[in-house]
Amino acid sequence: MTDLSRIEATVLVARNFDIDTRQEPIIFLRSDSPVSRSEGFRAMSRVHVESEGASITATLVAVGEGLLAEGYAGLSNAARSLLRVSDGETLRLSHPKPVHSLAHVRSKIYGDALTHVQLSEIMTDLVKGRYMDVHIAAFVTACANGRLTNDEIVFLTQAMVDAGERIRWPGARVVDKHSVGGLPGNRTTPIVVAIVAAHGLTMPKTSSRAITSPSGTADTMETLTPIDLDLDAVRRVVDREGGCISWGGSVSLSPADDILIRVEKALNIDSEGQLIASVLSKKIAAGSTDVVIDMPVGPTAKVRSVEAARALKEKFLYVSKALGINVYVLESDGTQPVGRGIGPALEARDVLAILRNDPDAPADLRDRALRLAGALLEIGEAAEAGSGYNRAEQTLKSGRAWDKFAAICEAQGGMREPPCAHYQYNVFARSDGVVESIDNRLVARIAKLAGAPADKAAGVLMHVRIGDTVTMGDVLLTIHAESPGELEYAIDYERSVISPVHLRKRS
Amino acid sequence: MTDLSRIEATVLVARNFDIDTRQEPIIFLRSDSPVSRSEGFRAMSRVHVESEGASITATLVAVGEGLLAEGYAGLSNAARSLLRVSDGETLRLSHPKPVHSLAHVRSKIYGDALTHVQLSEIMTDLVKGRYMDVHIAAFVTACANGRLTNDEIVFLTQAMVDAGERIRWPGARVVDKHSVGGLPGNRTTPIVVAIVAAHGLTMPKTSSRAITSPSGTADTMETLTPIDLDLDAVRRVVDREGGCISWGGSVSLSPADDILIRVEKALNIDSEGQLIASVLSKKIAAGSTDVVIDMPVGPTAKVRSVEAARALKEKFLYVSKALGINVYVLESDGTQPVGRGIGPALEARDVLAILRNDPDAPADLRDRALRLAGALLEIGEAAEAGSGYNRAEQTLKSGRAWDKFAAICEAQGGMREPPCAHYQYNVFARSDGVVESIDNRLVARIAKLAGAPADKAAGVLMHVRIGDTVTMGDVLLTIHAESPGELEYAIDYERSVISPVHLRKRS
Repeated sequence: MTDLSRIEATVLVARNFDIDTRQEPIIFLRSDSPVSRSEGFRAMSRVHVESEGASITATLVAVGEGLLAEGYAGLSNAARSLLRVSDGETLRLSHPKPVHSLAHVRSKIYGDALTHVQLSEIMTDLVKGRYMDVHIAAFVTACANGRLTNDEIVFLTQAMVDAGERIRWPGARVVDKHSVGGLPGNRTTPIVVAIVAAHGLTMPKTSSRAITSPSGTADTMETLTPIDLDLDAVRRVVDREGGCISWGGSVSLSPADDILIRVEKALNIDSEGQLIASVLSKKIAAGSTDVVIDMPVGPTAKVRSVEAARALKEKFLYVSKALGINVYVLESDGTQPVGRGIGPALEARDVLAILRNDPDAPADLRDRALRLAGALLEIGEAAEAGSGYNRAEQTLKSGRAWDKFAAICEAQGGMREPPCAHYQYNVFARSDGVVESIDNRLVARIAKLAGAPADKAAGVLMHVRIGDTVTMGDVLLTIHAESPGELEYAIDYERSVISPVHLRKRS
Repeated sequence: MTDLSRIEATVLVARNFDIDTRQEPIIFLRSDSPVSRSEGFRAMSRVHVESEGASITATLVAVGEGLLAEGYAGLSNAARSLLRVSDGETLRLSHPKPVHSLAHVRSKIYGDALTHVQLSEIMTDLVKGRYMDVHIAAFVTACANGRLTNDEIVFLTQAMVDAGERIRWPGARVVDKHSVGGLPGNRTTPIVVAIVAAHGLTMPKTSSRAITSPSGTADTMETLTPIDLDLDAVRRVVDREGGCISWGGSVSLSPADDILIRVEKALNIDSEGQLIASVLSKKIAAGSTDVVIDMPVGPTAKVRSVEAARALKEKFLYVSKALGINVYVLESDGTQPVGRGIGPALEARDVLAILRNDPDAPADLRDRALRLAGALLEIGEAAEAGSGYNRAEQTLKSGRAWDKFAAICEAQGGMREPPCAHYQYNVFARSDGVVESIDNRLVARIAKLAGAPADKAAGVLMHVRIGDTVTMGDVLLTIHAESPGELEYAIDYERSVISPVHLRKRS
């Protein structure tokens, strides 16, 4: 029992408030609390909170006497889990130390190039939860649009790696892949890992959730198998099967990246320097030595032109070379969504169809996966130069890729079937014509408004591709949603913009 | 009484949660609420909330069943007051419309110049509460460091004026002043208004609270008289006395500015384009025709060099000309704090000493106020060219300025004495010497850590000025605080940095 009489003014008793504010740690204090008076805390000020085992910086919310008894401090779920406290344990409150690295953020806003030391200090404070969201947003914005020099990207990547844990593997070569986003449905990873691991190569893939898209590889894989593997589990699965497809957020590999991505998501921006640092910091921390980058190029993809692709490729090569990791960039077609499904479960269905050699499986997604797997087989010396694609295709056709995928899912905790949405809505062609173009961004937006990626079954199912001939009344796409409110939200949006599927008259 | 059986799924009953989150509107919903299920709302998502009389966009926080009964929605104080609802009234919840103007913010991040229409859409959505803090931070950052063209500053200023109310005065000429910040203690406004209004000129001064400094004019004046005058009250006071010194936040003049400033404060940045738009939008909305700008220049002031002052002055003149308002820029010495007090009440004491012709009143603050008042008297044709300073000084010496100041305070709701801090701490000279320089930024930082401006009596009292001879053990400055926690916080900081008062050995 806590003896309240012996507690100093700055000590309060924890009370779990059962309040979900996502990642945001919040502490609730009585507005008339003597602690606030003696420390000068005010509503929405930042407060340093210490428990027996941990300390955090939290935002203070002031509450009336109806909600909290004197001497207690309420904790949001995030605060409670970070502090690792239960009801009745004591908390010590004080002013957080001034965050000196914010001066570096201001330097960056004012156009200065940052040093390795400055970026390390920023990443350390970021990971320790000392930044408010406005600070993170300012940092992300100040670094956007080419405002990071190549050397700053190198420093930032290194700082992000250093701010987290790092895995080392016994073998000499550890392969990996990454697709630059912006292309809905481009879900090659599960297929690539299965093929490559079937050949005995090591590919410990940790994937991210969606940043600005309706699904990330982690979101899609989650509909098929558990993905929240900790470091030990990743090791165990990879030791047994050669590969895994897990969520990067469960391991402490480049945790700064997860924090930056959360804000980039709210801002709906994902800029070059940060993209490179994000990808390479995860790969380096995961112990990868050789990484193939899939870079789709198209007018509504992230990389919009061949020139932009070249520039991004050069930056990738500069930074990777400086950090001692081998990167191979493969450009690909980015003019339209890949496969049929867009959204976690809908994409998982495409992946399963390909791995199971279903004759109706989407050929474009299959071809892209084989190209990437082929490149990795050649790099990993499991195929001769020029024969990687064919080796990969044999592995798929023979069922070895499917067997390996099933074994990986089994090792991760068991395979399951992706869910199916309760609500569906067909969008019909309003005229006859030939599909001239498809706007990746509008398709992605509709899928997100329908609830993807948070609702696993939500998203968009595409029924047409560029060049297809359609008749008025044909279904162009189907919106899938898990709640009527989100279905309406997506439908409203689809109606209010130019159709994402653009038809020209038949000649 | 509310008949719950007739309410649709999206309707909930309001419950005042008595939770203070400052300006941030928050709505608390049960995590198992059918409304969340049918609409697909998730913790921390943005929700459109409608009451009988108003609608807002709020952040959703999910709570357990212990805190809220089924069918109810808890409201933070800000949400409740914006929605103007009492306990038991009904609320309608829906998805907010996608905020199209965020695409313009992204354009700005990617370096595009924005049009008048784009900036107007951003300001409208901002004022309607549709932006999250991360969006505001991104906008502020993307516009910082000279990234706004002169024309964008014109458009932004106009958009900020248009997003709020506007006062028109019957007379042809309405004068005003503004001091560019960065100089602690530079509290000339109350003196200037008193002198100018004593000559029958119209000067409806609306001031801001501190952005990055320990006190704004509004913070200081609040220790002397009520400043939260609405538009009618401003009109009434100015009609009667010719001048007022009120808080801009109580009138809806350029409300976008108040929102931007809140985030600039958290980021501790206040950049050129935004500074100009902030100042001029307030002045234009207040109906001013002629504005004198006091621009202190010094190595630790906001404007650091003569070149920077010239550049800022040119921008001010370009933008004011385009918007049809006359601006006169007066450069001044910005090498050290002005007067003795830094912090709301401490500065108010300096102001009172000058207005009361106290022989110990700080001469530097007095001189600065007389220069500005003199310029305004000349512009307003209440003094011949070259004789403004002397006319202003006579007005002060004769007691007419004091009488006018007292009358204005009376009209605003009555004069009061500024409070005195409970805790004080003297910082002593650690050696003999002559004061060579004083770091404005460090002094301001100490005053802020001590609790200014939120604690009115908190701040720093300076005992020395540049050129003063000091002996080891002399008091250099006194820290004032209202809580022991904040006093310690400020003392810790003062000890951890190079002293803000720099001594050189006596020659």
